[in-house]
Amino acid sequence: MSNEKRHLKIGVFLAGTGHHVASWRHPKAQADGSINLDYFKELAKTAERGKLDMLFLADSLSITADSHPNVLARFEPFTLLASLAGVTSKIGLAATASTTYSEPFHVARQFASLDHISGGRAAWNVVTSSIELTALNFTKEEHLEHSQRYKRAEEFVEVVKGLWDSWEEGALIRDKEAGVYFEPDKLHELNHKGEFFSVRGPLNVPRPPQGHPVIIQAGSSEPGQHLAARTAELIFTTQNNLKDAQAFYESVKSKVVSYGRAPEDVGIMPGIFPILGETEEEAKAKYQELQDLIIPSVGLKILSGYLGGFDLSQYPLDGPVPDLDQLEVNAVKSRFQLIKDMVKRDNLTIRQLYQYIAGSRGHHIFVGTPVQLADKMEEWFTQGACDGFNLMPPLLPEGLELFVDKVVPILQERGLFRTEYEGSTLRDHLGLEAPVNRYQ
Amino acid sequence: MSNEKRHLKIGVFLAGTGHHVASWRHPKAQADGSINLDYFKELAKTAERGKLDMLFLADSLSITADSHPNVLARFEPFTLLASLAGVTSKIGLAATASTTYSEPFHVARQFASLDHISGGRAAWNVVTSSIELTALNFTKEEHLEHSQRYKRAEEFVEVVKGLWDSWEEGALIRDKEAGVYFEPDKLHELNHKGEFFSVRGPLNVPRPPQGHPVIIQAGSSEPGQHLAARTAELIFTTQNNLKDAQAFYESVKSKVVSYGRAPEDVGIMPGIFPILGETEEEAKAKYQELQDLIIPSVGLKILSGYLGGFDLSQYPLDGPVPDLDQLEVNAVKSRFQLIKDMVKRDNLTIRQLYQYIAGSRGHHIFVGTPVQLADKMEEWFTQGACDGFNLMPPLLPEGLELFVDKVVPILQERGLFRTEYEGSTLRDHLGLEAPVNRYQ
Repeated sequence: MSNEKRHLKIGVFLAGTGHHVASWRHPKAQADGSINLDYFKELAKTAERGKLDMLFLADSLSITADSHPNVLARFEPFTLLASLAGVTSKIGLAATASTTYSEPFHVARQFASLDHISGGRAAWNVVTSSIELTALNFTKEEHLEHSQRYKRAEEFVEVVKGLWDSWEEGALIRDKEAGVYFEPDKLHELNHKGEFFSVRGPLNVPRPPQGHPVIIQAGSSEPGQHLAARTAELIFTTQNNLKDAQAFYESVKSKVVSYGRAPEDVGIMPGIFPILGETEEEAKAKYQELQDLIIPSVGLKILSGYLGGFDLSQYPLDGPVPDLDQLEVNAVKSRFQLIKDMVKRDNLTIRQLYQYIAGSRGHHIFVGTPVQLADKMEEWFTQGACDGFNLMPPLLPEGLELFVDKVVPILQERGLFRTEYEGSTLRDHLGLEAPVNRYQ
Repeated sequence: MSNEKRHLKIGVFLAGTGHHVASWRHPKAQADGSINLDYFKELAKTAERGKLDMLFLADSLSITADSHPNVLARFEPFTLLASLAGVTSKIGLAATASTTYSEPFHVARQFASLDHISGGRAAWNVVTSSIELTALNFTKEEHLEHSQRYKRAEEFVEVVKGLWDSWEEGALIRDKEAGVYFEPDKLHELNHKGEFFSVRGPLNVPRPPQGHPVIIQAGSSEPGQHLAARTAELIFTTQNNLKDAQAFYESVKSKVVSYGRAPEDVGIMPGIFPILGETEEEAKAKYQELQDLIIPSVGLKILSGYLGGFDLSQYPLDGPVPDLDQLEVNAVKSRFQLIKDMVKRDNLTIRQLYQYIAGSRGHHIFVGTPVQLADKMEEWFTQGACDGFNLMPPLLPEGLELFVDKVVPILQERGLFRTEYEGSTLRDHLGLEAPVNRYQ
């Protein structure tokens, strides 16, 4: 792979009506998008027309009346991706699955089956469930504490990988004449016994076409970075400027090397939230149109979610943000730090902060023309800040269509992105080797 | 529904290469059928061409080197059915999901999502996991004992149904202008607290198009019959002759009535294993061809699985079956009784018994012409023995194609089976009302 020209890796994070909090209110939005199959099929086909590396689905296992429309009432990821596999033939299919309230045997099976159904296009975004309420949907009194969730996640991933190796290459010979369906020496029990799991195996699905589906992680905290550097093949991250992105990139790549892996074994893909216009003015007007659709009470509630539940509605909307270090914050520590930095740097009012946070949820907002976006992507890609991007279109389907029709051709012309899929699996697109079976 | 002519309900149980134990060795078999997506797509299209009510998939959560080729290495049911939903538009899609090693929240979500993806065609075959080894794939030291599994199953089903009701009809108004996505009064927490589960809810999927996916059960034991009579809408059962089938039918329907339900609220569908020929002689020759493909060691192992692990290979193959009441049998009690009755009635040798058991695994074998099969189905249907059948073709795809092309037209001509789908959901096909939301 190293002799080939390095290309951007580009995923698209499909979120109902789009990533802007008020996107569902936009006149062009498909308001029932999160549960409309034809709509998702069109999005998938558009992304494949743009030769993107993959579709990406987030997930969650609990809701409240305050949850966002995109997560309140939506498809379960495996059934949706299995369906989308049928209307596409090349693009990768990445599902989020939590390690906190699932069983490794079920998760190994679902991804292996999806990988077979899609001909080798599955990826697993490994997450821990950070929402305390989720415990109450799974007969648990208490939520696992942060470091325990990461330890469980790490063991969970090891078990899943072990189960994926249950069947060696060539095990299933299916010799009708001799009456031998498989070679018993090539079928392996895992017999894992660890702190959190005991799993015998073997898995009842043949080894996935990719060997293992691609492993994605998004943890940006210190334990998250270590876990990702040891076990991930793609890392999603929130980076708001070139300098921070470069520092994160260097930090993670050096950790990757310290675990005995090559830097190119792990791709780093910051999220980007692009608002595109024919001119800068048009782009700014589009952004303002979306921002004006944010309902203040909704914006404040979302902000509160990023502040460990602390409610700022008692303070004047157009007054300064109070000292955030007084507050106790339990989850998503890295994003909390970003928020504090932003408030300090730009001296934001509460309204400005919730608009910024609620609009993109802390992700990197880009407002400009297709050429300007291509310039920024090229800069980050060539200046050691990333290996690609996870697109978070503010408004769907428009944001994806504009990217595919206006930005992709520029990137292709500059030799930064493929003009055709060279292979047919997600590993092919990403230039990632298939793991060798541990028993081979 | 009661004014319409009563029609047979017909499902097809899709099992890899077919239900005969040696089917994978047959020259016409697709030996990799259990993990071949194009093959399943063709089967699904054939069944829909025949206007059948539904496809049915079994499942299991553990394998050993002795497992049958159809279960050793196969698709996970939800991903497979979501994929098959894309190549069909009417036929029902029934998945087996165990209540023993899963969480109600996950299962409720998967079926709700499948029901949305398929436009109201999902059904859930509720099972308990009866294989002790399965516990070892799920970090459990000991398998739950039979009656505890049933109690857990009953509570599990109640929780899932409650979660499906989370969103009332019309809750999702998505009023862009007013900025109101849903009516909070119509979103409900379940707040279930029971012996096995505490589940808060609500579910993050809108109420399924069918209200609830159709509930199927297969337990024929006494607690299984009671559970089914209280909660099931279809019952799969093993019945080998008209008289026993009539007795079972009457027993279950009277239990259904005793729980305050109407007899037609529950459809009873015995399995049938039909070997079809243009003439009886051809059918018998086909059966013999399959029986001759059974490897004795495989037949004995399968028989042993039906005898609580007792191994008969120490006895002469062509000698009599020893007294089975000496043996301790833990699981599948109702089938064990069938086996004992059969041995007593037909005075079988061990070879004859394993051939019979291994071939159809105790299910009702039919060998004859399409007209004879139609006669038998009509007899059972009109004589109070069943409401339809779950087809278990010995060899796929041939067994399904023959049924669709040769038997269905006869049943249609006799007015016993639909000539077109009248509705588009599985409940429409089965004449089952959609349950009213408990909060409405």
